[in-house]
Amino acid sequence: MTDKKVDSNLEYLKKLFIMPDSPDKFIEFGHQLLEILHHLFQERGGIHSSITLPQLSMIFDQTAIPNNPKLIKDVLIEIKDKIIHHSVKVGSPYYIGHMTSAIPYFMILLEMIIAALNQNQVKIETAKASSFVEREFLAWLHRLIFQRTDRFYERNVQNHRIALGNITSDGTIGNMTALLVAREKAFPPKGGFPGCRIAGFDKALKFYGYKRAVVIVSARGHYSIKKAANLLGIGEENVLSIPVDLCNRIDIDALKETLKDIESREIDERTKVIAIVGIAGTTETGNIDNLDALEQISRDVDAYYHIDACWGGSALLVEEYRTLFKGIERADSVSVDAHKLLYCPMSMGIVLFRSEKDLNYIRHSSQYVIRRNSVDMGRFTVEGSRSFACLKAWAALKIIGRQGYSLLFGHARNSTEYFKQILDNSGDFETFSQPELFILAYRFIPNAAREKLIEWCKISAHSSKEKSKEAKQNIRKINHLINGLNIKLHKALRMDDTTFVSRTILESTQYRPNKIVVLRAVLINPLTSEHILDEILEIQKRIGLQIWQGFEPAYQKILEKLVNEKRIKATREI
Amino acid sequence: MTDKKVDSNLEYLKKLFIMPDSPDKFIEFGHQLLEILHHLFQERGGIHSSITLPQLSMIFDQTAIPNNPKLIKDVLIEIKDKIIHHSVKVGSPYYIGHMTSAIPYFMILLEMIIAALNQNQVKIETAKASSFVEREFLAWLHRLIFQRTDRFYERNVQNHRIALGNITSDGTIGNMTALLVAREKAFPPKGGFPGCRIAGFDKALKFYGYKRAVVIVSARGHYSIKKAANLLGIGEENVLSIPVDLCNRIDIDALKETLKDIESREIDERTKVIAIVGIAGTTETGNIDNLDALEQISRDVDAYYHIDACWGGSALLVEEYRTLFKGIERADSVSVDAHKLLYCPMSMGIVLFRSEKDLNYIRHSSQYVIRRNSVDMGRFTVEGSRSFACLKAWAALKIIGRQGYSLLFGHARNSTEYFKQILDNSGDFETFSQPELFILAYRFIPNAAREKLIEWCKISAHSSKEKSKEAKQNIRKINHLINGLNIKLHKALRMDDTTFVSRTILESTQYRPNKIVVLRAVLINPLTSEHILDEILEIQKRIGLQIWQGFEPAYQKILEKLVNEKRIKATREI
Repeated sequence: MTDKKVDSNLEYLKKLFIMPDSPDKFIEFGHQLLEILHHLFQERGGIHSSITLPQLSMIFDQTAIPNNPKLIKDVLIEIKDKIIHHSVKVGSPYYIGHMTSAIPYFMILLEMIIAALNQNQVKIETAKASSFVEREFLAWLHRLIFQRTDRFYERNVQNHRIALGNITSDGTIGNMTALLVAREKAFPPKGGFPGCRIAGFDKALKFYGYKRAVVIVSARGHYSIKKAANLLGIGEENVLSIPVDLCNRIDIDALKETLKDIESREIDERTKVIAIVGIAGTTETGNIDNLDALEQISRDVDAYYHIDACWGGSALLVEEYRTLFKGIERADSVSVDAHKLLYCPMSMGIVLFRSEKDLNYIRHSSQYVIRRNSVDMGRFTVEGSRSFACLKAWAALKIIGRQGYSLLFGHARNSTEYFKQILDNSGDFETFSQPELFILAYRFIPNAAREKLIEWCKISAHSSKEKSKEAKQNIRKINHLINGLNIKLHKALRMDDTTFVSRTILESTQYRPNKIVVLRAVLINPLTSEHILDEILEIQKRIGLQIWQGFEPAYQKILEKLVNEKRIKATREI
Repeated sequence: MTDKKVDSNLEYLKKLFIMPDSPDKFIEFGHQLLEILHHLFQERGGIHSSITLPQLSMIFDQTAIPNNPKLIKDVLIEIKDKIIHHSVKVGSPYYIGHMTSAIPYFMILLEMIIAALNQNQVKIETAKASSFVEREFLAWLHRLIFQRTDRFYERNVQNHRIALGNITSDGTIGNMTALLVAREKAFPPKGGFPGCRIAGFDKALKFYGYKRAVVIVSARGHYSIKKAANLLGIGEENVLSIPVDLCNRIDIDALKETLKDIESREIDERTKVIAIVGIAGTTETGNIDNLDALEQISRDVDAYYHIDACWGGSALLVEEYRTLFKGIERADSVSVDAHKLLYCPMSMGIVLFRSEKDLNYIRHSSQYVIRRNSVDMGRFTVEGSRSFACLKAWAALKIIGRQGYSLLFGHARNSTEYFKQILDNSGDFETFSQPELFILAYRFIPNAAREKLIEWCKISAHSSKEKSKEAKQNIRKINHLINGLNIKLHKALRMDDTTFVSRTILESTQYRPNKIVVLRAVLINPLTSEHILDEILEIQKRIGLQIWQGFEPAYQKILEKLVNEKRIKATREI
């Protein structure tokens, strides 16, 4: 393929820009591109395309900006051949590995509108109706979560003096914004002290007489909490990680212990709890903390209470899920991702504050963009220039509606339950924990090994100390082996490339303190049918059993060694 | 308009999702939407639409999420009537008020591709070719700025062990990322100390024996620098603002004074300069600091050197602009916004680090998303989930090419020079400073008042102390009056709504210490012709002179008072 050389001139360039009068080219290329996209969706093929990463490195190896302009048509062809063809088919119903899933096609049309309008939400002069859409949308989500009074929302839905929350680029910035507010509320202006924001974190600790400040979250906390602690100057080691129970929920007793320990510290170790972070939908397992208990505890220790509901928050759209979230309405702030369970495209976060006054803690202004008395939304955001991304979520709530989301989540729940059931029945898999929000952690473990493991677990629980110790060693060895098996299986599945699940490590299973490598399925694609789940299981089982052959000798050795050890022991005892 | 009620069912919903086999609806609605957009571009009308903000409040006043699903068609009509119609026409050639301008129409098509692929750049498992495109694009920009060797780029263009930079949601996050790296490099791990990142900002200061840490930038510094200082725990009052000269460039002597002052501090006031920030294209005036001198100074005081080139950085695409940026290639990091002079849609920032190792200071990992030894780009970014936004800038550099950008910037420069020339010739305007990068600050000032001002300025400069003092008072009074006039004019122009410029306040004019309200034109729309600029001037002059009538009495009073004061003085002297 030789691209046509383009001799650029200003008249040609002017025609590329959107013109109010005759954008014929726009319609023409629009139709062409719709056809390309249409074609793309019709392609089957692997999830990731078979090209290797080193091969891709060679395709994208230009080290300098190209000098000569190319025709749009030629660049579109290049995009099709080099990029679209080698993209990950995250929308495939066989792709059940990450929170990135299929999106409704109308989202693509909404993206066109957003780009064509090109509003900048930072300022009313660059975003008129879109500012109002964003405020309305934030009020909707705020009400969904915090359920304040009719009067509260009537007063604040379009109240430009306050902000109920922010639209952010993603959940990480959402969590960071919440913790920024938390830090300022922990060390606010007082007397001559201008607040942490103005004076800095070191002066804030000093003024308030603390040696240390911490943020507390469970071991399932998203890595963005640590990132935020780094950014905010709090320090990653001051994120205290609390163990979780078998259901991956924060261990309330362990939390209380930690807090008691903090409170009992000497004056030269005085520690401020800036925030306790609850999780409503852990990234790894989809479970929800006891949000109610966390709220009470946060109040008791005078800590800010943030809930990371980036994954699960949207489930509140369906009334029957509300009980899982009991207490969320009394949190100080909650973050939710639109590109997860609202089925929006990458990427958009939402962070909401129960008190309409909280974002005033980080309110700022400048002469040229956001004057102090303006109505500009940029006064309240961490980010500056922002697109009109919220149109997608706003429109989705209208088009899909609560009723539609109810059906989608119903399907997701059925998929999750069905997958768990067939895995449990298969004999060669083991599932972990009770899935609450469409995420299932499990692993491949051949039947024989699984039965041995069950046996040793029984011995470990009900036998003498010595026998129990021996069983525990066996459990450790076999888990170590099965961990290796699942890592290898996961890699082989990537090679096979007809299906996709992800992989992680959990310390919170019944085998604690053994860390368990698990496969992780996120079952939210409405096109993932039971038939497809059957297929996925079959493929994993087939490939898993093949790989297991390589592990058999090591497995036999463990068994033999046990037998031998028993013999030696028996001999000794003679 | 009564929307059709939709009875949702799962089959209907499934059809909304992108299906690999038959997305007929997608093509159908795509064509419809292209027509709607086409129609939108053909509409003339005002810049902002005439609807008032309170009226908009009443349109978007729903306080709860709608229950019943609506047809896509009905929601699109709603979007057209309520949103598109009341959006700001930032692409209009008469809109020369902000950095948000027209974009080439192919951007809209690229947005469709990005949404359809829905890649998440955080991880290779959710972004295959797109990860490689992003790295290639970052290498291009890195080379454009830092001009390192062929070998450097060949080795690093697709080196997944390092990162040359980040794509961010906007320039604010770009600047923040740079300052995060700067903070860590100021207080890195050493001996038993794990680094600021792990231990926190307070412990970092203590370990390194500092009482204070500061970031230095000129008075023209973007407000995101202060925001970053807040976020990073440094504190806003520790952003030291250095005055600028008449050309809005940092006053190098004043900077040296400040640094001398910092160095001479006693041990109990010991201050670390975390970073010096140069500006390559100030937001208000488009001027560029003496980047070369700043580099030398930064090295002398062992400070990190970041350049905020969010506005101007893209000008490096055109060789003739490089001299303005002399020294940028030796900065530690540079941020550039794609939604500004790369003519991409809202919003995308880029931050680049000269050393390929610098982003390792903030490298992080997690089990489930970005494993330590992975090739995932999320290891190096402040944000988490990110869209494939860089496709737009990557494709634009191919389609427009350096040659095309040269023509676009040539047109922008001609527009700026032409506008300055007609304003200067008109007699009723005053322009400020020499525009370097397509931004012009000016104000409306009727000829008579302007001439009086010139007269007083001469007296102030060349007369006795007393006469000079009197002249300065007059200058202050008249500037105060003209400030009021320009604020009123700006509001009236918003009402007129056929053209748009923005407004800000400058302290850096020849009238210092008087602060001057200025109108601000950003002249980058390739469709803004000389004829349109003539029109804009005429409208501003016409409305300005009308408003001036209301100011005349106050103006006369100033003149009379002067005459009276002269008389009284003369009488006294007799």
